[in-house]
Amino acid sequence: MEVTRTLAKFIVNHRYADIPEKVRHEAARSFLNWVGCAVGGSRHETVENALAALSEFSGPRAATVLGRANKLDAMLAALMNGITSHTFDFDDTHLKTVIHPSGPVASAILALSEHKHLNGKDFIHAFILGVEAECRIGNAVYPQHYDVGWHITGTAGVFGAAAAAGRVLELNEQQMVWALGIAATQSSGLREMFGTMCKPFHPGNAAKNGLLAALLASKNFTSAEQGIEGRRGFANVLATARNYDEITGKLGETWEISLNTYKPFACGIVEHPAIDGCIQLRNEHNLRAGDIESISLRVHPLVLELTGKKTPQTGLESKFSVYHSSAVAVIHGAAGEEEYSDAVVRDPKVIALRDRVTAVVDKAMHEDQVHVTIKLKSGRTLEKAIEHCVGSLGRPMSDADLEAKFHALSAGILSKVEADKLIRLCWDVGNLKDAAEVARASVPAARPAQRASR
Amino acid sequence: MEVTRTLAKFIVNHRYADIPEKVRHEAARSFLNWVGCAVGGSRHETVENALAALSEFSGPRAATVLGRANKLDAMLAALMNGITSHTFDFDDTHLKTVIHPSGPVASAILALSEHKHLNGKDFIHAFILGVEAECRIGNAVYPQHYDVGWHITGTAGVFGAAAAAGRVLELNEQQMVWALGIAATQSSGLREMFGTMCKPFHPGNAAKNGLLAALLASKNFTSAEQGIEGRRGFANVLATARNYDEITGKLGETWEISLNTYKPFACGIVEHPAIDGCIQLRNEHNLRAGDIESISLRVHPLVLELTGKKTPQTGLESKFSVYHSSAVAVIHGAAGEEEYSDAVVRDPKVIALRDRVTAVVDKAMHEDQVHVTIKLKSGRTLEKAIEHCVGSLGRPMSDADLEAKFHALSAGILSKVEADKLIRLCWDVGNLKDAAEVARASVPAARPAQRASR
Repeated sequence: MEVTRTLAKFIVNHRYADIPEKVRHEAARSFLNWVGCAVGGSRHETVENALAALSEFSGPRAATVLGRANKLDAMLAALMNGITSHTFDFDDTHLKTVIHPSGPVASAILALSEHKHLNGKDFIHAFILGVEAECRIGNAVYPQHYDVGWHITGTAGVFGAAAAAGRVLELNEQQMVWALGIAATQSSGLREMFGTMCKPFHPGNAAKNGLLAALLASKNFTSAEQGIEGRRGFANVLATARNYDEITGKLGETWEISLNTYKPFACGIVEHPAIDGCIQLRNEHNLRAGDIESISLRVHPLVLELTGKKTPQTGLESKFSVYHSSAVAVIHGAAGEEEYSDAVVRDPKVIALRDRVTAVVDKAMHEDQVHVTIKLKSGRTLEKAIEHCVGSLGRPMSDADLEAKFHALSAGILSKVEADKLIRLCWDVGNLKDAAEVARASVPAARPAQRASR
Repeated sequence: MEVTRTLAKFIVNHRYADIPEKVRHEAARSFLNWVGCAVGGSRHETVENALAALSEFSGPRAATVLGRANKLDAMLAALMNGITSHTFDFDDTHLKTVIHPSGPVASAILALSEHKHLNGKDFIHAFILGVEAECRIGNAVYPQHYDVGWHITGTAGVFGAAAAAGRVLELNEQQMVWALGIAATQSSGLREMFGTMCKPFHPGNAAKNGLLAALLASKNFTSAEQGIEGRRGFANVLATARNYDEITGKLGETWEISLNTYKPFACGIVEHPAIDGCIQLRNEHNLRAGDIESISLRVHPLVLELTGKKTPQTGLESKFSVYHSSAVAVIHGAAGEEEYSDAVVRDPKVIALRDRVTAVVDKAMHEDQVHVTIKLKSGRTLEKAIEHCVGSLGRPMSDADLEAKFHALSAGILSKVEADKLIRLCWDVGNLKDAAEVARASVPAARPAQRASR
């Protein structure tokens, strides 16, 4: 059983021509969504603090922090873009594993593309292959690995970044085996960090460390031959169960990026059905907070495990509160980044409604489902059962939805014209002569700041 | 139960005056031994490959790669010195946990001392506190954590580096809690990597990542409050059993660095009793390889688990072969770095004797013990039972032994005069006005190279 080597061989030898057009388009959708999230998060306190700490250690400033005038060396830029793109928890989700696949992979190779010339075709090819490696490794150990407490976007992400960066650096098969091994031995990230700045740190760190793994391997820095499947390797040490067929089966026949989804709401995906249900009821019945006696939810078990914070105190914490999310869904009719600001979290009206939301677990539900019951002070009861939440594979966001989301995220950072240009480049990334054009186009022209740090 | 906060409070508030003189001297011994190992390893292929991969990404080149003219930014220098100091597997060992404690801690803060002025007293104080944090966290999860497959020098080392660097950066209590949390979420390193360049990568990576954690925390980059003990924190996710008393009990009363040991032989500590026994028999009976029919060992179970490679092909692999080690002990009467070179591994005489070594596990033995039986072609049988191996706590290396080891390691890199000066500075590090003087003194004066890369 040669899991690591089989995967390495595939990554090194795969041909772009063998990727179906539909898969390529899904990659462009993923990339567009990721760039929007990175630009949107680029002014957050999380990013400012990280820059304040690390900027002075930067090497040659070849790579862009998306949405900002700052440049950093490729490894620090990879870290920073991984952070910005996950800061709002608004990036893409591979629902089979709850991995956020683009962050670790795109952050690593976009930074690398500014360091080393890379055409758009090779960029998007490496991106698809990196996501493939990352999600297949996630599939092999999910859900036990996640249940133990690993943040799988960090632990699997580092493999994706190493695979993609290794492909860009044109590693040979043996070097790719080493790159995956060096990734394995850096695999880390704890779910205990959810609700703190360390959550977005995880995809950033995975990007940086995966890039480091590929760079080291490119100079023949050796690792174990079986970093994934060895007796003391990733899958045996970080998981209680594993299925290697998920990594080596049907390579090149199925594409994990086809299973990628994009969030309509700026919070943990498990809360989305509840938000969807609350917004639908609000809009159908013109609900106002003052009308409502109580909101009762029946939810998948992960909802309370991951987003069960009853009394969030900060914007970051509120993303892990299905109570807060349901309240803003009814009051604002939305759950974008604004609804998770500190100001909204402290709004007495939101707090009052939040405290009237209850939730119970229904083990029969799948992750896409919710049942919402709203009791009105008038005595009337409204109900909504969601079978497939908006943004799920069953009801995906359209290309136009993704563009609208991009504009909402970039507003106040990029002008409309700048955002339109950047969107065009993202759709067209596979045809660019220089993939780094995307990074450069993400930087707004110098003008007075219009949006304060949050 | 506030494990992380209790530890953070201790690290932040501890006073140097409260460290007994004997503990300070052990710290100087640890530091001296570590500097010698780092200088000795500084020309190895492992280091050359890492430098070739990463040097171009360096930020301001403020920090020294010990023993070399190269300078790098503090984070890359921390990585590199952690690698060099563990490349020969010749550094110190906290026997209770098999952590190599100095590498992660000293690499982080020596690099930081070149970036930010630091006097020797504050340096050695931070060093002792970092080792304390690292070994206590190791004690809390050992041996289950190690048995699962974690390389504890990496996984615990990152906490030590964060604690020490955080102390140097004068973090407040809350920031120290965050630094330990950011360390927790980077905790990584797999035993699968033993015998490859990734083994020494682990302490280097721990040093770099611990420093990163402290730098981020100094700018209020937040993490979980209970990075160590939280439900999804380090001790629950990376170990199957845990005892928090080992972290919070008797803080400031006992000192883990007092339990540190130094290797007389350049390989895994579990093989040392066998080498000690073989060298003693060789010297007592003037043995030559040609006289020997067979060598039979009775050993602690870890010996075969960790160093059971029957037919090592490279110098690095041979460090994980008790068969090779026993053969060179008889033939060379030593097991220094030279005995683990590729050339010696391929020596037909060594191979012939190695193939006549057998080993069986004796579960009744403790880790310090061995029983060696050598059958001679003459029909005679020689036996040696070792109770406490040289270099163990029961038979520690003297200060003079440590100086001799330092000279052997630095020979060919530093002149005798340079080595003597560096040794003096290491003994005196607690009194230096500028701790960075040690780093500067490790660089040989420019002259024609006398020792080739290995």
